[in-house]
Amino acid sequence: MKGDMKSYQTLVNTYLKEALPKSTGDFKLLYEAMRYSLEAGGKRIRPILMQLAYEAVGGTEDIARYLCAIEMIHTYSLIHDDLPVMDNDDLRRGRPTNHIVFGEATAILAGDGLLNEAFEYMLEDAISHGGMERVRAAYVLSKASGTKGMIAGQILDMTSEGKNISFETLETIQRHKTGALITAATKMGAVLGLGSKSEIDALEAYGHYIGKVFQIIDDVLDEVSTDTVLGKPVKSDQKNHKNTYLSFYSVEECYQIADRLTVKALDVLKRINGDTELLADIAVTLAKRTN
Amino acid sequence: MKGDMKSYQTLVNTYLKEALPKSTGDFKLLYEAMRYSLEAGGKRIRPILMQLAYEAVGGTEDIARYLCAIEMIHTYSLIHDDLPVMDNDDLRRGRPTNHIVFGEATAILAGDGLLNEAFEYMLEDAISHGGMERVRAAYVLSKASGTKGMIAGQILDMTSEGKNISFETLETIQRHKTGALITAATKMGAVLGLGSKSEIDALEAYGHYIGKVFQIIDDVLDEVSTDTVLGKPVKSDQKNHKNTYLSFYSVEECYQIADRLTVKALDVLKRINGDTELLADIAVTLAKRTN
Repeated sequence: MKGDMKSYQTLVNTYLKEALPKSTGDFKLLYEAMRYSLEAGGKRIRPILMQLAYEAVGGTEDIARYLCAIEMIHTYSLIHDDLPVMDNDDLRRGRPTNHIVFGEATAILAGDGLLNEAFEYMLEDAISHGGMERVRAAYVLSKASGTKGMIAGQILDMTSEGKNISFETLETIQRHKTGALITAATKMGAVLGLGSKSEIDALEAYGHYIGKVFQIIDDVLDEVSTDTVLGKPVKSDQKNHKNTYLSFYSVEECYQIADRLTVKALDVLKRINGDTELLADIAVTLAKRTN
Repeated sequence: MKGDMKSYQTLVNTYLKEALPKSTGDFKLLYEAMRYSLEAGGKRIRPILMQLAYEAVGGTEDIARYLCAIEMIHTYSLIHDDLPVMDNDDLRRGRPTNHIVFGEATAILAGDGLLNEAFEYMLEDAISHGGMERVRAAYVLSKASGTKGMIAGQILDMTSEGKNISFETLETIQRHKTGALITAATKMGAVLGLGSKSEIDALEAYGHYIGKVFQIIDDVLDEVSTDTVLGKPVKSDQKNHKNTYLSFYSVEECYQIADRLTVKALDVLKRINGDTELLADIAVTLAKRTN
């Protein structure tokens, strides 16, 4: 498709609405809790990046299942992360968090459900489509979200709370906790679109750079924004004694680092023959975002 | 291979020891927590059933990844199920439960890690092997463990606590919560071994019958056994106001039902040409088990 960011976001939201079982019958509560968080809005940045990377390498088919899967996994991680025994957050995307509405037990199961559903949803498609590149894309996601990716980042983030950590450890946390899934988004798009090795590498590198920008700005906004603008409580890093880029750099320096990474992201896009205009726009926008 | 139950159990335990990253470096705590529960012992009934079903239809290759995956998923469900906001159990397989040793936050992440790892582990193998039947087996597992399978059973079990439910609802809970994964074990074995449609159906039916026996005896043992024999606290169903087969039948009637289901399981095995001796043994043993 051709369109602006808004139209891609609408497309993803349409796919997500169709992705889960309807909230009826014996398992109503589970599906309601899953839908509550999955349809809560959010920027949909990961599926949008995947679709754009897919199109950039020439992909023209329907990859809805993979777009939904990465958003399911992102959403499950937020639900579990918000739990009282984890970050204990009451507000997310401007609404009460999952466990506030449905209780902790259901929130845990809704998270488990979204993680499991992501793979079920992709595997069903991979079988009916028959293309091994779809299995490969599912594997890329599993690695990024797993115990050598996002979950590893979570545990290191948690065990580092309140401690003085090195800048290297901070970068390890970022690369795993948020970086892995954003990098997976663009890589999956390239894999699904049967991109060349060089295209896959370039889009992976692009994902790596903007993922880092995303985290740096996240840290900055948690410090300088307001609850209303951000849709979640600010100063939560401070409250949870988290190490962030602001433990090492000033707000101004953070913006400078983000700018330098954005230049690298734009640079690496030049290696792609297809249309990368929106990917470039996203890189620039991320560095300037206010929520 | 040829061997008795014990040798299959040893084989599975050897595979499981190799399955997870070693507990070193930044993510030590996560891997330790995952290993703690995955290597805690247990009957390994699901992977053993899978391997036996695989061999019964003539499979001769290495399906270690799928054996480990189903045990990872079973183990993650126990870790999350034992949490204070869920069943709040302190003892499992004769040892303190995961959250007692590692804390609730780490236990949640260890569970998430095992669920994710199961898919990562299978997908990596499916890609290097190249056979679509391996993707199909992973899909069978995802359906059984997911929001139309095990997790659905969990939510219904939870929302039914302390309520008077119909026998039909009890059976729906059992079929999803414990039945789905046991049935998936035998079906996956048949799928991986390239069994015929009739063989896959027969082994699926066998799994269905013995899964039900497994649950009925579980309910009975929770009532009539002791903590020491069972390796976990007895009377937990009563404590948690759970509906069980004993809400509808006496202990003696439960054993009669289990016997009738065992006959059906043995009957359906006759449709398989290969060696089903150990599968038959398991069916008989399950109905008589004391822990």
